[in-house]
Amino acid sequence: MTATPSVDDEQLDLAAGLKSALRRLAGTVAIVTSRDSDGRPHGMAATAVVPVSMEPPSMLVAVNRTAGLHPVLLRSGRYCINLLSDAQHALLGPFSQTALREQRFQSGDWRDVAPSTDERLPWLPAAPASIECVVEQTLDHGTHTLFIGRVTQVRCAPRDAASAAPMVWLGGQPVRIARLD
Amino acid sequence: MTATPSVDDEQLDLAAGLKSALRRLAGTVAIVTSRDSDGRPHGMAATAVVPVSMEPPSMLVAVNRTAGLHPVLLRSGRYCINLLSDAQHALLGPFSQTALREQRFQSGDWRDVAPSTDERLPWLPAAPASIECVVEQTLDHGTHTLFIGRVTQVRCAPRDAASAAPMVWLGGQPVRIARLD
Repeated sequence: MTATPSVDDEQLDLAAGLKSALRRLAGTVAIVTSRDSDGRPHGMAATAVVPVSMEPPSMLVAVNRTAGLHPVLLRSGRYCINLLSDAQHALLGPFSQTALREQRFQSGDWRDVAPSTDERLPWLPAAPASIECVVEQTLDHGTHTLFIGRVTQVRCAPRDAASAAPMVWLGGQPVRIARLD
Repeated sequence: MTATPSVDDEQLDLAAGLKSALRRLAGTVAIVTSRDSDGRPHGMAATAVVPVSMEPPSMLVAVNRTAGLHPVLLRSGRYCINLLSDAQHALLGPFSQTALREQRFQSGDWRDVAPSTDERLPWLPAAPASIECVVEQTLDHGTHTLFIGRVTQVRCAPRDAASAAPMVWLGGQPVRIARLD
């Protein structure tokens, strides 16, 4: 007798299929920063970052509810999306591995890192772009919360700067990009 | 006397800044398909496509409320995200330009295109991946609606197939990608 797949089995198969599909979805890597109630900086590497609307200018980040950054975002209602450049691989480990969390914000690449309760969030001058947002809507779905933020400040690297090329992530690793001329 | 920037001016400046920043955000191009109440296929090129959660497996697409696909998605509650490969540039024009809309679904690349009211949505066998979803939540924000869908079916190209490499969009144009080995 062949067992009928249960709903749980189907969901596992779908999750495995979706993981395979997502290895074929390229995205820009960003470090999303914020501050806790004591003004201490927090940050997390993320690829689920998309624009939502130009009127008003707004961005969305999806954050796992188990992530350390999640309660910080809920409380502060503010975040800064720092797109990473091809030259900023060294920042990725600390912001994606809990074991390396003590190294976050330790490099000289960051600005406005010192504990502070003012409006400035940690940002990267050498990033292709950093986009500061104030959270306007949140929506829980499954394991994640979507944070939709109104853009309050944008900083961009000059278009011809080496730092203007973003780090592109595909299939669990960074890939190099080249213009099709 | 220098005029004080109005809120509208500030918003225009932010929108211009955000557009510059988004030219530094790389994304995979997808064609999102659905069916209207007569079973006719509809589709639209999109780059605002991200995973939301693995439990349950779910994806998000952001769609402008003025897009022809918007009322179709609201009514059908279903969509298929077809990631485009590097070899599928020819599909992009018809699905991003209204003047070329008659050419949508005309190429032999599509499957399940004929008007139909069954469960199958138009999909691309040569796509890196196609991901079918049933809408579970929607959220309006500014000009756009977010459609969050539970994944119901996933099809993937073999990992070593040429079609497994996605079309990556950066700064308003496609770019070539290469693994960093």
